Formats: sequence, C-alpha cells, structure tokens
Amino acid sequence: MKKVAIVGAGQSRFGEFPDKGIKELFLEAYQDMSKSVDRNFDPKRIQAAYIGNLGCGGFQLGNLSALMSEYIGLPYIHTMRIENACASGGYALATATMDVLSGTHEVVLAGGVEKMTDMSGSKTRYWLGVSGDTEYERLAGTTFSGLYALLAQRHMHEFGTKREHLSMVAVKNHKNGAMNPKAQFQRETTLERAMAAPMVAAPLNLFDCCSTTDGASAVLVCDADVAKQFTDTPVYVAGFGTSSDYLAIHDRLATVSLEGTRRASERAYKMAGVGPKEIDVAEVHDCFTIAELLAYEDLGFCEKGRAGPFLEEGHTQLSGDRPVNASGGLKAKGHPIGATGTGQIYELFHQLRGTVQKPGRQVKDPEIALAHNVGGSGGTVAVSILTR
Amino acid sequence: MKKVAIVGAGQSRFGEFPDKGIKELFLEAYQDMSKSVDRNFDPKRIQAAYIGNLGCGGFQLGNLSALMSEYIGLPYIHTMRIENACASGGYALATATMDVLSGTHEVVLAGGVEKMTDMSGSKTRYWLGVSGDTEYERLAGTTFSGLYALLAQRHMHEFGTKREHLSMVAVKNHKNGAMNPKAQFQRETTLERAMAAPMVAAPLNLFDCCSTTDGASAVLVCDADVAKQFTDTPVYVAGFGTSSDYLAIHDRLATVSLEGTRRASERAYKMAGVGPKEIDVAEVHDCFTIAELLAYEDLGFCEKGRAGPFLEEGHTQLSGDRPVNASGGLKAKGHPIGATGTGQIYELFHQLRGTVQKPGRQVKDPEIALAHNVGGSGGTVAVSILTR
Repeated sequence: MKKVAIVGAGQSRFGEFPDKGIKELFLEAYQDMSKSVDRNFDPKRIQAAYIGNLGCGGFQLGNLSALMSEYIGLPYIHTMRIENACASGGYALATATMDVLSGTHEVVLAGGVEKMTDMSGSKTRYWLGVSGDTEYERLAGTTFSGLYALLAQRHMHEFGTKREHLSMVAVKNHKNGAMNPKAQFQRETTLERAMAAPMVAAPLNLFDCCSTTDGASAVLVCDADVAKQFTDTPVYVAGFGTSSDYLAIHDRLATVSLEGTRRASERAYKMAGVGPKEIDVAEVHDCFTIAELLAYEDLGFCEKGRAGPFLEEGHTQLSGDRPVNASGGLKAKGHPIGATGTGQIYELFHQLRGTVQKPGRQVKDPEIALAHNVGGSGGTVAVSILTR
Repeated sequence: MKKVAIVGAGQSRFGEFPDKGIKELFLEAYQDMSKSVDRNFDPKRIQAAYIGNLGCGGFQLGNLSALMSEYIGLPYIHTMRIENACASGGYALATATMDVLSGTHEVVLAGGVEKMTDMSGSKTRYWLGVSGDTEYERLAGTTFSGLYALLAQRHMHEFGTKREHLSMVAVKNHKNGAMNPKAQFQRETTLERAMAAPMVAAPLNLFDCCSTTDGASAVLVCDADVAKQFTDTPVYVAGFGTSSDYLAIHDRLATVSLEGTRRASERAYKMAGVGPKEIDVAEVHDCFTIAELLAYEDLGFCEKGRAGPFLEEGHTQLSGDRPVNASGGLKAKGHPIGATGTGQIYELFHQLRGTVQKPGRQVKDPEIALAHNVGGSGGTVAVSILTR
C-alpha cells in the first residue's frame, strides 16, 4: 500500500487584518508553505487543492477553491472547497491523503482559509451558530458558547471538574501562544485574570472562548516515494480517522463526551497502529477551554472525568510528557475556522522536524503527533496522526 | 488497480416544494436510491457520504453533510460537504471514486441537495451570482444570465450561430423533459414559443435559462468486487476528470469555449480509454442553452463553432446517434445546484441499465455514457464517463 507524506507546511499570521482579503491570506500561507519545502518546489507539480472554508467571507463567494487556486497561480487543477464547519481543514487533509492513496494525483495541496473580522459582530455570531443544529439550537436562541457551556456544566456536575481547571487551559495555551510569532494573542495571562474575566455563558467566561480570526494555512501532501525529491525529512500521515455525530447535543449519546472524537481517534489509532500513550505532541480543538478537557478524555490521554487533574499534574504543559497545543491552540493562536485544521498540521510538521521558529516552544524530540479538529459542537471530527 | 462501480441511484422529484425542507428532499433521494439497489442493500454498510451543496438553504446551515447524514440514519460516518458551485455534485462523485480507489472505504454515498425556492427572488439571484467572480463580475453588476449572454454573443459573432439554435436546445430538452416524471417542467414547447419568450439578457430569453429548483440526488458507489453483492448489472466509473479555470471570463483563454470542459473531458477520456465519438448518451450542463452548444464542441462531439448545425442535423435528439440530455437537462428537468451533478449520474445509471421509468425516453442500448457538470460560468468542471 502507498504511503503519504507531507513535505511542506505554511501558515499566514493569524489575527485581525483589515487590509487583507481572503485571497491575500491564502496566498500568504501558500508562499510560506513553498518556502518550507527543502528543494525542487515547483507549482506546476501541484495537481489538486482541497481547501477548507466555512463562511466565504460573509457568504460573498462561491466556487471559492477555484478562486483561491487561480490566485496562487494554479488555474487548471482539480480543486474543491470542503465545508465541515470548524473541521473543514482536517477533512481537507483526509481528502488529500485519500486522493494520493488512490493514485489519482501525486502532489496535492490541503489548506484552509477564513476571513472573519471586518464584519458586524452579529454576522460572525450567526456564522458560528450555523455549525450547530440551526433548527433545534440556533433558532431556539442557543449561542455557540452556550452549547459548550452546557457541556462544561455537565462535566463539572458529574466529575467535579473545577472552574479553575477551565482557566488553567487558558493560562497554558496563552503561555505557549506568547512564544508563537504567528499567534493572534502573543501574551501570557494569569490564573487570577483568567478566572475574573467577564462571563459569556456560565460557566464559560471570556478567557474560556477562542476569538474570531483571519488566517490561512496550507500543507503539501504527496506520495512518500515522490517526497524524496522534495526533502530528506518528510512527515508521514500514518493514520487518519473521522466521524460525524448528531448535530444537536440533545440527540447525543452523552453530554460529557464527544462521540465523534472517540470514534475518529479510534479509527486513526487503528490505521496508524499506535495508541494514545504513544502520542508525543498534540494539537487539539480548544475552541472553548472545556473542549480541550473533553479532548484529553475522548482521545484517550486520560480516563473519562479525569481531565482536570490530568491537566493539573502538568502532563500537557510544554515541559510535560504529552504537550498539548504548543502553538497556543485555538485559544491563543486564534481560530480562523476553515484554516484551523491544516494550521494544526503546520504546527506539528514543524514540531516533528524540529523547525519551530522560536526554540523555546520546541517540544523535545517528538516522533508521533496527533491533530484533533472538531466541527460545530462535535457534529464532525477529524483526527490525524503524523510521524517522522 | 481497483475498479469502481455504481450499484444504486436515486433522485427526488425536482421542482418547487414549499412543504419540503432540505432534509426531506435528501431523504427522498436516498430512499429512492436504496430501492434501486437490486439486493442486499444495508445502510450499515455505507461508510462515507460526499454531499454537494451551494447555498445551505439560504446560508442557514453549516456542517450540512453531518445534518444530512444523521437525518438519513447514518450518524457516525465519514461525511463531507463539497461546494464547487453548480459542479458540486460532479466533484462529489469524483471524491467518492477516489475514496473507494484509495481503499479507505468500500461503500460510499455521493449525492447533492439544494433548496432554492421559498426565498425572495433577489436572494436566489445573489446565490447564483457568487458562483462567478464576485469582485470583478457580480459587484460590477453582471448577472449570471448576463455572463452566459456574453458567451452567446461572441459565439454568434464568430461562428454564425443563430438565435434559432439556442431555442432548438430548449425545444429538444423540453421534449425530453415532458417524458420524465421527475422533471420540474413536464411539457413540450415549440420553436415559435421559445423564440418569442421575454428577453432576460440579450440574446438569452426566458426559455434559454434554466429555472431555480428544489431537489436532491444520491448514488451508491463501491468497489467493483463488492458490487456483485448488490447487483448483476452495476455501472462502472470508467473515468473522471476535472479542471478549474479563472472565474472571471475576462481572464480566460477564450470566450467561445470553456477551457475547464476541454481539460476535464480530456482527462476523463484518457482515464477511460475512450474518445468523444464513442459516447452513446450524455447529460451535459445546459444551465443556459448556449452552454449546451459550447459543451458539444468542448467535449469533442463536434468541431469548434459547429454546434448549431450539429444540433440542427439531429445528432443529439433522443433518436439521434448521440442523445444529449435525455432527462430534459437542467433546462426542463430543473437545476437544484448541488443536486445536479449526481442527478446526471442518476439518469445515466438508469439509461445504461435500461431502467428509465418511461420507455419512450429510453436511449437504445447505450454502452458508454458521459456526464458533464459545470460550476459557475466554467470556474470548475467535472466530467465522468460511465460504462455498463
């Protein structure tokens, strides 16, 4: 069976850029990716592009992947927009991987882009709302933070998870983000400050919620045999798994777990032939602090209900035995919806190759990495496992 | 190398259904598909779903593929929404094919759905506009019919294509649609009536434009070895090809040709090992009558500039040697954007198996079929070649 490799990964700066449109953001990520390829990069070799995106810049653009492809200079390729809410990028990588495995194309781009600022606040809130169940949740008045607040409430009730645990996620991720030159928020915070932030949807306060962000990311995926032409140190896609779930949380099997994460990671571990204990570094989908705690459990990093203590014991700190969100995560790095999935891959590509820009945030010698990307409140989930 | 087969195909009625939402439409197509599988149909065997959609019911829904999947009873599969404007369905089939070829999943759904009516007219016009180049075309005031009108003007100017030729496309497709119990418009028209219809964007009048339509379609794709469990008469995906192009027509190589169609069909022919003369029946993307004429030429059915006379000579009539749009095409069957691509596959599946509902419109003993699906004014194109 074929093997799939990643030979380049790029990311735009994440943040709020009133002077940049969706095309400029994607070009920035593409150019950054091209510079990361060790040798022989040639745009003419790119035969396909899978581009994750939710909002099309306020629903202003259709046929978006063709527009992005022509703008980066690839007008006649196989190109396709993928929309699985916030998990679009993770599915873009999965699709690129299947494409290469199928033998259809040899060198393929997987990426994502989102322009979220420069719109009225209500418009952005509306976008995010559409990722849940519109009929039973959004139109009934539930906000997106409200949905995750319900999951947090229940987790605290069932397992004694403390408010402090939520804030500890924010403190950890802001600490990491402070060292990431491409993060939206490059500053640390304290537990006191995080605890005292204004309430958004109890128990989630402002520091429990990720921001709205402009940004793009792109990775170059190819057949492992072809990879040798581009680099001596490719990163391999050892496994991937995805799963959907009922959109409305009232339909779910549980409210203290994302079934999609459980199933997607089970499939990815099986394909890669590794288990959760073998993961050296992970980027998980912390759109809200509670989401990172749920991920620890649903990915099998710790037992169900034990995420709070697991975090408190320091395992997921940069210096711990399983660093999570070394990039700052969605919380500090920012969350440009469609770009988040391949943005995680960008981070792990450089972590595995030892090429993160600031040595302070380089995880020590990781060999196996995991990316976890969630759409909506768990309606779609993509998990990828990368190896050196 | 693996071979990919289609073992079932379904379509909802196309039309205007104020009492049906996007979920109900997709379920109708799914159930129709399930009934078309000769034996052993089991939802539990479906591991993935690729669903084409442009407008999410007025941009009301995100994570749409997960919502559709849970509604048809498949909550935990690999599911993904594909948006390549009007070509979304064609790309859904291409993606499903690559998935099966890659060995990732064995039995996969490819489909599409669109809810276009029950919205204000301006909102639907806005949708269609986003499929072109918003920055240089839509915001400059160009409508979608306006773009195709420019292509028609130029074709008439360069090749002497007549106004009558445009209307003959409408007359042919309405004649075919009149026999299709799932078509939006099941009535014939005359050349006189078609010629006298109110002008929309010169030279295109009302009868040169397809309608706005609610509808869904779904086909069941699987490994050819697995296909034997479901039927003795599968249809094979012998080839597929896609290509993007510059969105804005002022950037294109030509305005009397869709370069995307040329390249996509070249790739599909090469993969299938057949040429245009061997196609026995085709569904082409006639969003406007001029689009069908361009397709004849760009797919290689006739020489560049000769589409008018080619039509006049009767080749593409139901009784001709290369029937085109036996279903009625987008013109008479209707054009529910995301559902059109796999809707074409639905028609060709039944044509190849000799199982169209009304014998009058059954093409005589076809062996090789071609589907041609265009996004926007040619920004994305997917071509599929099917065989018995």
